Amino acid sequence: MEDVFLRFKKEDLFDYALIYMEKLGVPEADAKIVADVLIEADIRGVDSHGIIRLYSYYGNRLEKKYMDPLTPFKVISETDTTLLYDGGNGLGHVVSYDAMKKCLQKAEKSNIAIAAVRNSNHYGIAGYYAMMALEKDMIGISLTNSQPLVAPTYGRTAVLGTNPIAIAVPSYNEYPFVLDMATSVVPIGRIKVFEQKGQKLPFGWGIDDDGNVTEDPKKVQSGGPGALMPLGGIDIMRGYKGYGLAAMVEILCSALSGASYFTGVGFPHEPKACDVSHFFMAININAFRPLIDFKKQIDDMIKLLKASPKAKGQDKIYIAGEKEFDNAKYNKQHGVPVLKNVVKELVANGKRLGIPFELKSIYEK
Amino acid sequence: MEDVFLRFKKEDLFDYALIYMEKLGVPEADAKIVADVLIEADIRGVDSHGIIRLYSYYGNRLEKKYMDPLTPFKVISETDTTLLYDGGNGLGHVVSYDAMKKCLQKAEKSNIAIAAVRNSNHYGIAGYYAMMALEKDMIGISLTNSQPLVAPTYGRTAVLGTNPIAIAVPSYNEYPFVLDMATSVVPIGRIKVFEQKGQKLPFGWGIDDDGNVTEDPKKVQSGGPGALMPLGGIDIMRGYKGYGLAAMVEILCSALSGASYFTGVGFPHEPKACDVSHFFMAININAFRPLIDFKKQIDDMIKLLKASPKAKGQDKIYIAGEKEFDNAKYNKQHGVPVLKNVVKELVANGKRLGIPFELKSIYEK
Repeated sequence: MEDVFLRFKKEDLFDYALIYMEKLGVPEADAKIVADVLIEADIRGVDSHGIIRLYSYYGNRLEKKYMDPLTPFKVISETDTTLLYDGGNGLGHVVSYDAMKKCLQKAEKSNIAIAAVRNSNHYGIAGYYAMMALEKDMIGISLTNSQPLVAPTYGRTAVLGTNPIAIAVPSYNEYPFVLDMATSVVPIGRIKVFEQKGQKLPFGWGIDDDGNVTEDPKKVQSGGPGALMPLGGIDIMRGYKGYGLAAMVEILCSALSGASYFTGVGFPHEPKACDVSHFFMAININAFRPLIDFKKQIDDMIKLLKASPKAKGQDKIYIAGEKEFDNAKYNKQHGVPVLKNVVKELVANGKRLGIPFELKSIYEK
Repeated sequence: MEDVFLRFKKEDLFDYALIYMEKLGVPEADAKIVADVLIEADIRGVDSHGIIRLYSYYGNRLEKKYMDPLTPFKVISETDTTLLYDGGNGLGHVVSYDAMKKCLQKAEKSNIAIAAVRNSNHYGIAGYYAMMALEKDMIGISLTNSQPLVAPTYGRTAVLGTNPIAIAVPSYNEYPFVLDMATSVVPIGRIKVFEQKGQKLPFGWGIDDDGNVTEDPKKVQSGGPGALMPLGGIDIMRGYKGYGLAAMVEILCSALSGASYFTGVGFPHEPKACDVSHFFMAININAFRPLIDFKKQIDDMIKLLKASPKAKGQDKIYIAGEKEFDNAKYNKQHGVPVLKNVVKELVANGKRLGIPFELKSIYEK
């Protein structure tokens, strides 16, 4: 790990991300939200969605004025249980943070609430917003669509986003249950890693331009040729279920909010509003049964899963979110890991923008 | 198809199911619900969940007094947006029908509603209750747990149910979007079919008693040995996502309602309450945007998916539920197909119970 990562103090990274965002015109309060979402991703070991995107996604789009640094989001309409937002083509994190916060407020009174958001951009890790519910001891759900990267079953081009499903469920003593999964087999970044290493893809991750499953990562590219396969992969393994889930997420995000969908959702490099859309939901557990009973049941469920017999050669059964909580524990103590080539990029872009990246990495044996 | 199926008039089958249920002590109004759910499954081509279960599941449990024919369900608590039911260890269909109906009523006023049901039994096809929302032009969601049949990733025994996710979304001119999928790769019945045909299983459908993937259907049995694999299958194909989804369904059903979970859920043959639990939800689209706009967008989304380029050798991209709607159209015209050996079983059990099954099958060329 030491070869590839440098480790930084969380506060240092946070402050840098803050200054960086502010330099690009993002108000301080908004920049704090973005910085927290990004660094939380790195802390949880989801480095594909962390500080790596500070420049490559958000900085780049902000600098080119493809999105609005002020994130002038608006609540278009609301009821006791629902919210419809326009994200103002700003930072997805900022409107999403507000949408989930208001969902939780509404759920305190009305027990359930849903917010749909249109005209937004990438919002970082879906799980962040679902996990906001944990502080209120509620169940949180967070969905988003994305630029087209995934082919429908029997298709040969990318139509659907990787459309993640995230749900966070509070527990008693165990880690909370936090599922945060793309509805494709793997994200496009995973294909890139195989390409860079010159490795063959597992059969069922991606298709080529003819719609045939390919093991050649060069044939599975963002924007084509080829496309990712939905969870399940090939037909006989029921890839149409992953396709169905991806379509479900696309509907709940884009159709409830009135946003673009499928190939209408913009890629980050495109000089236009991406019109990404999101869906958030909060469930107040107390409306169904005493919270303490619920949380103890979640603990028992987790224990039962973990205690169940292991496959030969395996010594542990994981719970959704467990690895990420373990990562967070370790990384909070030892420093937030950032890929060395991401650090290089931060240094280069920081210099160009007059926001030098001069953080000292933490020594670690 | 003519070799395997006999076709019956929908009304004839319905009437028989009704008489059958009533003979076993089920009140007429309840029997009508059960009959409708079962026959709807056959009509939609989901024969694993149709009239095949009239005796094998429901009749058998009723006859042996393992469940209560009166389905004395109760609303334990409710708010403007939530309902908690005790299913009274009766017919899952009966309490579920009521729960979804009340969800839809609440959603008319409160825009969103959720019902959690404990102490129930198998409720038939999950999609039936989700589709009840279509009549009200709402989005319907239906989840249930089941007896343990699926191993968690790295486990070697069945802990989770096949825990389906069903969602129904109204459209304008196109078929509605109706996803109804088990969160395992395949249901246990599919393994049985391979066993009966003496065929090898595709790699990734099931594991043996050691937790190794097996192609031998005899090693993947309900109640063990072996277990089904969650959607995705093996680790490299991200089977842990299917496992995560199955756990999510188990939580939303059992933990919200305070029911049994995982290996605590009973098998249909067990002389006790199964304590199956369900989760229903209704979303009132009008709370977000004009219904007509939403429905037209769903049509456009469906058209875009269907018009997207096909993989080599494929000429059609399907939408979730499309095949089932096509089946229903055909079967309503040509008669409801029932497997010949199911007919034999109906005849045998009908004779024993004094409810002779003497329906004439429809001639079909």
